Amino acid sequence: MPDYKAPIRDIQFTLYEVLNAEQHYKDLGAEDASRDMVDAILTEGAKFAEQVLAPLHRVGDIEGCTFKEGEVTTPTGFKEAYQQYVEGGWPSLAGDEEWGGQGLPESIATMISELVSTANWSWGMYPGLSHGAKLTLEQFGTQEQKETYLTKLVSGEWTGTMCLTEPHCGSDLGTLKTKAEDNGDGSYAISGTKIFISAGEHDMAENIVHIVLARLPGAPQGTKGISLFIVPKFNVDDGNRNAVSCGSLEHKMGIHGNATAVMNFDGAKGYLIGPPNEGLKCMFTFMNFARLGTALQGMAAAEQSFQGALVYAKERLAMRSLAGAKYPDKPADPIIVHPDVRRMLLTQKAFSEGGRALIYYCSMQADIIHANKDPEEVQLADEIMGVLTPIAKAFLTEVGYEAANHGIQVFGGHGYIAEWGMEQIVRDTRISMLYEGTTGIQSLDLLGRKVLASRGDLLRRWTRVIHRFCRDNSTPEMKEFIKPLRKYYKEWGTFYRKVGIKAMKNREEVGAAAVDYMMYSGYVTLAYFWAAMADTAYKAIAAGTEEKAYYESKIKTARFYFERILPRAKMHKEIMLSGAKNLMDMDEDQFAFL
Amino acid sequence: MPDYKAPIRDIQFTLYEVLNAEQHYKDLGAEDASRDMVDAILTEGAKFAEQVLAPLHRVGDIEGCTFKEGEVTTPTGFKEAYQQYVEGGWPSLAGDEEWGGQGLPESIATMISELVSTANWSWGMYPGLSHGAKLTLEQFGTQEQKETYLTKLVSGEWTGTMCLTEPHCGSDLGTLKTKAEDNGDGSYAISGTKIFISAGEHDMAENIVHIVLARLPGAPQGTKGISLFIVPKFNVDDGNRNAVSCGSLEHKMGIHGNATAVMNFDGAKGYLIGPPNEGLKCMFTFMNFARLGTALQGMAAAEQSFQGALVYAKERLAMRSLAGAKYPDKPADPIIVHPDVRRMLLTQKAFSEGGRALIYYCSMQADIIHANKDPEEVQLADEIMGVLTPIAKAFLTEVGYEAANHGIQVFGGHGYIAEWGMEQIVRDTRISMLYEGTTGIQSLDLLGRKVLASRGDLLRRWTRVIHRFCRDNSTPEMKEFIKPLRKYYKEWGTFYRKVGIKAMKNREEVGAAAVDYMMYSGYVTLAYFWAAMADTAYKAIAAGTEEKAYYESKIKTARFYFERILPRAKMHKEIMLSGAKNLMDMDEDQFAFL
Repeated sequence: MPDYKAPIRDIQFTLYEVLNAEQHYKDLGAEDASRDMVDAILTEGAKFAEQVLAPLHRVGDIEGCTFKEGEVTTPTGFKEAYQQYVEGGWPSLAGDEEWGGQGLPESIATMISELVSTANWSWGMYPGLSHGAKLTLEQFGTQEQKETYLTKLVSGEWTGTMCLTEPHCGSDLGTLKTKAEDNGDGSYAISGTKIFISAGEHDMAENIVHIVLARLPGAPQGTKGISLFIVPKFNVDDGNRNAVSCGSLEHKMGIHGNATAVMNFDGAKGYLIGPPNEGLKCMFTFMNFARLGTALQGMAAAEQSFQGALVYAKERLAMRSLAGAKYPDKPADPIIVHPDVRRMLLTQKAFSEGGRALIYYCSMQADIIHANKDPEEVQLADEIMGVLTPIAKAFLTEVGYEAANHGIQVFGGHGYIAEWGMEQIVRDTRISMLYEGTTGIQSLDLLGRKVLASRGDLLRRWTRVIHRFCRDNSTPEMKEFIKPLRKYYKEWGTFYRKVGIKAMKNREEVGAAAVDYMMYSGYVTLAYFWAAMADTAYKAIAAGTEEKAYYESKIKTARFYFERILPRAKMHKEIMLSGAKNLMDMDEDQFAFL
Repeated sequence: MPDYKAPIRDIQFTLYEVLNAEQHYKDLGAEDASRDMVDAILTEGAKFAEQVLAPLHRVGDIEGCTFKEGEVTTPTGFKEAYQQYVEGGWPSLAGDEEWGGQGLPESIATMISELVSTANWSWGMYPGLSHGAKLTLEQFGTQEQKETYLTKLVSGEWTGTMCLTEPHCGSDLGTLKTKAEDNGDGSYAISGTKIFISAGEHDMAENIVHIVLARLPGAPQGTKGISLFIVPKFNVDDGNRNAVSCGSLEHKMGIHGNATAVMNFDGAKGYLIGPPNEGLKCMFTFMNFARLGTALQGMAAAEQSFQGALVYAKERLAMRSLAGAKYPDKPADPIIVHPDVRRMLLTQKAFSEGGRALIYYCSMQADIIHANKDPEEVQLADEIMGVLTPIAKAFLTEVGYEAANHGIQVFGGHGYIAEWGMEQIVRDTRISMLYEGTTGIQSLDLLGRKVLASRGDLLRRWTRVIHRFCRDNSTPEMKEFIKPLRKYYKEWGTFYRKVGIKAMKNREEVGAAAVDYMMYSGYVTLAYFWAAMADTAYKAIAAGTEEKAYYESKIKTARFYFERILPRAKMHKEIMLSGAKNLMDMDEDQFAFL
């Protein structure tokens, strides 16, 4: 099993050097988020992730969760680790002080999420799911609801869930059937079945707060008739068990340590949260944050797999370098000498470190939105998030899966064997392209709802950031990055028109272009971050540094990215513009003749 | 779990219409391989695969193999299915009549292999591994060895294995340590540990014939000191258990139904096969056949996953078509109306059916080599196989894995749940890119050993086939395929020179280009087969047919392939030509700073 080492130096580079977090926290007025404080949190978080969570990674996979008579037992050590997590005050980092939180910016919680997620994704989902519930309560809960539920979620004493999916509907929430009937006492009776409820039932906390999508009697059909309810596992008034229970756990490809529950609501007592029939709208306000959490899974898979593969590539001896023995005293060269092994390692590194920059950048936009100071800045941050969130979610999970697969490949046949831990990363991360909206759904959101619906305005908010970077950093040494980046981002701004014109005749053109459009967007967005990292590195070297090797490694990785990864964008462009006809022409009964 | 339906119509199309098998079997002098006979074999094989093997697919995954005190129990039903297989005469289809075989061409055995492999890959590996042992014995065994072992393998009473890998070496066989010491009675004492031995121990047959790579005393170091030995599980002379035993089974990501054994040889009695110290050379003569078997796994994964995803895409209702409701009487449209779902289904279809054409074509080259009639034809077939085998193995397993992942994605969250069977296909097929030589090893074989070493001659054997096809079929309706195909195959012929020139200065250039070169080669090769299939379809329609929908579907899939898959080749070209520097520049200690 690969040991996890928190990439502390890289997190500091990303936060302070590339994204200028010190200034950012000052601008936010977050005085507590001094560099010393953030570094201390990072160091402590690293210890917890490395020493407590990482050793439970494989345990979770082997044991999985056990279901017996409605109760779920989590894998050995999970419960104790959660207790330590709560005692350490980790759940409350970014919580509002009013509800017992430490009031730090969201991006610092994201930093800790990275450590937790990479060390043990399945475990991290338990507190991760609480986050969605917290945000909903924070934004839409009444004072009483906040006092009752939010404080317990902020402290971590209770955990939360999001109950959306039903057996017949996932992406298409408009057709959901769970009912909510007025009990006449301010509460509602919730009835229906929800599936795929992550952390839906477990033994790690005293109570579980379910946030449930359901329909009020007579509500309009479709998405405009959905309301949001709080349904606690144990009623808060009398402490009794509520009529919500886990019917079974799913047998899954991975994330065995997390309980994926079928939840039965049999007239469970629930409380309306937010306005009636506007549940889906309420959900969408925090969707961006939840999706960013899934984007993190992609990055975490790349990082974890990279760490494992790198150690192996330096230790495993096989064949000689094509250029002649590099370690003649050994019976064979370590496989890191082979160009193709390096190609895979550098791909992992490029996605992990580039993904980190993208996610931390997004989390800082979330800080700005959350702090809610200057309305213009908030709007800009919100618009940029609108574009970057589906890219981060879909693109980083796709390339994170690729990176995890490279990890297996570097190990050769051993990568397929469970004890090495590399195949678990692939199985665990496969879900990331599915939940919180599939890659296809994210891509439609990006191209349709965001870019086309705003006639490109939202996209321009983001490409303007790239434009300014290119304008301000056109030094001779940066030319190899600035020149192609400029070409790509300008071209990016033209596609939506081409697709849009075709879509006026046939809306299917949007669906036919969406995923390739999203992947193109992802490769160009990461190119911007790699250019920015190279620029930071060049400036650090010019200013004089004792870490020259570190900064050079950034420039070399940026070069690798531009020469060996970014060309994929051209392919996505060609496919994206090939039109819907080659997909729609096939009659449904022509797909197979069996 | 997806039901398996043997794609009988498609196999017939590939064999008879695209590849002209009737003429091929006549030319071979294989009188028994009449169309009626082949069709009858196909129909019976389909029944066996659908009714006996497919129902054991998920059983194998859930139960896996059990190891207890050196004995291995295969999953419920595996043993009985094997008995039926032997009784049905399936193992002996292509065996030499001299050793009890039915003397049919190899390509007919490949056709049955497709059915077996797609229905249940893990089960199919047991008889599949015997094939390697059979070919070795046929070519290098003495008359006595053939009588003793080959007849039992041909009948299927015994199974075989290939024991190559050791804990410290897989790809790098030159460093293997297993020893063979002369017993002075014509036998040798074999000592050492072999790992990853597929079907190494099981309860399905009376005896197991291990073909083992080992070193004789005083043998030269490296690959030139390796000899080949036959080591039976039970000695043939006295019926006693030989000193070879299974030490444990590996816990793997997939193919749970197949026993992947650690085999301990403790002075086991073995018999030299082939000349001393030429074991590796002997192995390479049948490597092509064995690798083709693994290529089949990629194609089988695409087919199996496609069949599952297609059924689901027609049944699962979610959202409306972007162009307006297509099934207004249903609560939502089946997801097959959505362009992105079609993109995934068509990708699976294109790889499955295109892969079938490539594999069957290769198996016919194997027929020609095996029949050994006209030396010139044999040489040509051998040279074409030299180029196509690494492409088929590496490319089809890579795209087969992609296709299997699309299968999960079409199912959305349900794809991640074990009971649907889609995630098993991904886990099972992940190994195909690793064993029988990884993608990286195959790519080096293609670019280095085959194309560069022959200064492009071997490649030209194959591109000449494409050239003739383009020349002979330049009809107006075929222009959309012929024009790009011509451009690609011509360009293909130029790369090895570009890489070769750079490689004269630095051999690492070959390793740096190899995988992208192989992928480029795969996409262009499949483009040829799709163009050929479109051409066949156009001709069938022109000649008048009652199956117009079938033939149209081939033309539409070819168009999809050319417009949405083939552009990937351009990306691989750009990356392939980007040089080794962007990979080799990074110092080993610069990869990470943890």
